[in-house]
Amino acid sequence: MTTRRRLLSATAALPMLALPAVGRTQPAAAPVVARLDFSFTDYTTRGGGRLPVVRIGYQTAGRLNAAGDNAVLITHFFSGNGHAFGRLEPQGPLGWWDSIIGPGKPIDTDRFYVVASDSLVNLNAPDRHTITTGPASVNPSTGRPWGLNFPAVSIRDFVEVQKRLLESLGVRRLALVAGPSMGALQAVEWAAAHPAMVERVIPAIGTGEVDAWMMGWLDLWCAPIRLDPNWRNGDYYGQGRDAPLRGLAESLKLVTLHSRDRGWAAQFGRRPAEGQEPARRVQDRFAIEQWLDSAASARSRLSDANSFLYLARANQLFLNEYESGAAALAGAPQRWLVLPSQGDRVFPIEYSRELEATLRQAGKQVELVPLRGGLGHLEGVSNIAQAEDAIRRFLAP
Amino acid sequence: MTTRRRLLSATAALPMLALPAVGRTQPAAAPVVARLDFSFTDYTTRGGGRLPVVRIGYQTAGRLNAAGDNAVLITHFFSGNGHAFGRLEPQGPLGWWDSIIGPGKPIDTDRFYVVASDSLVNLNAPDRHTITTGPASVNPSTGRPWGLNFPAVSIRDFVEVQKRLLESLGVRRLALVAGPSMGALQAVEWAAAHPAMVERVIPAIGTGEVDAWMMGWLDLWCAPIRLDPNWRNGDYYGQGRDAPLRGLAESLKLVTLHSRDRGWAAQFGRRPAEGQEPARRVQDRFAIEQWLDSAASARSRLSDANSFLYLARANQLFLNEYESGAAALAGAPQRWLVLPSQGDRVFPIEYSRELEATLRQAGKQVELVPLRGGLGHLEGVSNIAQAEDAIRRFLAP
Repeated sequence: MTTRRRLLSATAALPMLALPAVGRTQPAAAPVVARLDFSFTDYTTRGGGRLPVVRIGYQTAGRLNAAGDNAVLITHFFSGNGHAFGRLEPQGPLGWWDSIIGPGKPIDTDRFYVVASDSLVNLNAPDRHTITTGPASVNPSTGRPWGLNFPAVSIRDFVEVQKRLLESLGVRRLALVAGPSMGALQAVEWAAAHPAMVERVIPAIGTGEVDAWMMGWLDLWCAPIRLDPNWRNGDYYGQGRDAPLRGLAESLKLVTLHSRDRGWAAQFGRRPAEGQEPARRVQDRFAIEQWLDSAASARSRLSDANSFLYLARANQLFLNEYESGAAALAGAPQRWLVLPSQGDRVFPIEYSRELEATLRQAGKQVELVPLRGGLGHLEGVSNIAQAEDAIRRFLAP
Repeated sequence: MTTRRRLLSATAALPMLALPAVGRTQPAAAPVVARLDFSFTDYTTRGGGRLPVVRIGYQTAGRLNAAGDNAVLITHFFSGNGHAFGRLEPQGPLGWWDSIIGPGKPIDTDRFYVVASDSLVNLNAPDRHTITTGPASVNPSTGRPWGLNFPAVSIRDFVEVQKRLLESLGVRRLALVAGPSMGALQAVEWAAAHPAMVERVIPAIGTGEVDAWMMGWLDLWCAPIRLDPNWRNGDYYGQGRDAPLRGLAESLKLVTLHSRDRGWAAQFGRRPAEGQEPARRVQDRFAIEQWLDSAASARSRLSDANSFLYLARANQLFLNEYESGAAALAGAPQRWLVLPSQGDRVFPIEYSRELEATLRQAGKQVELVPLRGGLGHLEGVSNIAQAEDAIRRFLAP
């Protein structure tokens, strides 16, 4: 009975990696948030690539004040999109940080104008709620999908695109930029690139540096995609071709397990999958393997393999225009709340402690509040509400 | 200059994952250890499979006393073999724990009779110094390689085969069983299965439990092999067929990075590989990626992909005949020295702390000495000498 309930909660944890289509629907009615569309032309990437048009989706809550300085930017994680709060449909799932964003919540939409946008090269390109520009988009100059002809982009490019979006909305200053995981990287890159536009920063389950070890891991996440014969060097779009879903599913499995911890996995125990005899046959499966198989396989159908590769590269290029994290953050804003997770295996907690030390050395005000729980990295997404008090204190007027 | 020297030391660290052919040769002459061959017929695996013949390689040092109770068994890690000490050729590399095994060393061959054998389903099946029985061996009843018809085997099977080898040598009691990583699993399984035969146990960089989280990781290590079209469900042996070396190399890369830590990776910095522009082109490589590519590719040519899968399964089946680690170890020997590594990402140090707690609760004498250093998991192989004093104390007569 207990086991059954815990298994259900494992499925409930899936939306973090699997939003939005695999998400649980919620019974209560809530206001539906509109997905909006922002585009502009002629963007030159930081690496010198030319994009004739950039288009991304976003959503907002609250109202911008006359001074344009009560805005909050929420930045999303690797496999996420801008659906950070609210529902997109009356019975649809809540956004991934909905527990802390809304009227009267720690990020109070009665006070702040909150904006959350889809990244460039978003993983969820095939999903109807996501709007992005990346390798799966049509290159206007050829009329065909970009594939690997799309230029590499960096987290800094994500920031530059967000800046144009915010300016188009009349935002002059961000009271806060906050996000988990890759969202933390964007928040830190904002602080480095445009410190005068940012008042406060919350990097959750992130880092102030993507070092060689993490760069290596990002590459290993990508390896299964490149091994899938259907990948065809990224040229798999169009009729009569199959997307490299097997390789993509294996890549997603790496992200899924890496971003969870032992406490989460304990629910599966050492049980074989039903009808399987792993102690006799090497091809037979255990329960944990079967869960990973089916979760990743479901998720792969809403994801784009090339976009996965571009996202990994964008993470590898975090702060790549600076010699070091310290150099990047010397002129950064003053106020920081760092929210690492104790059992984080993607960005082990020492990454956040090093960021804290860098910020202190630069004379910033910084508080570090560790999240706890068996979910590991994903505590910073699913269970961010445990930091509610710290966030309220940090944002107190 | 410093960078160059550190890069060389990265290459020097390779033998741990790449023994024996990629190992550095050593200038000094030293006695050459003979590789010996043990075989027996009609083995029934713990899972009920039938092996008409089992053959494994081994080596020894020191002399067995008349009582047959001064023997030490050294058990190897996932990608290793029984070449734990000495040289196999006058100019060849030293064994992986040579720093602590030999005359006057902590595991003193003037006092102990030391035995180290190749495991079943050994990864190095194609290597001429390795003798093993596994999926790459010829099935005597068909005259063809077993492939996936080879039965799944467990760490307990490794132990049972070692027990027959030791009995054939006249060993009646083990003064010590010790090994790193998968070697630690074998040591613990020995303690559970045959406590009366074991006096002391040293599990280094290991665990007392392979839980669902670790079982999931072991499966993810295997995924690239299964994605390689040359794998053909394990049926790739024989003329005109190519082994799945690309997939195997990606699997080895996962093991390589997982078993190292940030301090080791720091030598590569965030540098692009020579002539590459990763900030512009998504297919271009960073230095760390290139090193992983070439190390794993070299290593794949001396390894067998199916054996990798069987090894992963054997690890998943660690202590699978017991309800829990506590149940397995209630009747275990009294004396334990647990050697975890502080930056271990494969078996994070809490696994060893939990083993320590389990042993204490069962009333055993246990000392835990953490290894330190930027190499992570592999501190327990390359830098085991840092535990020299603890091992000497533990083995004091």
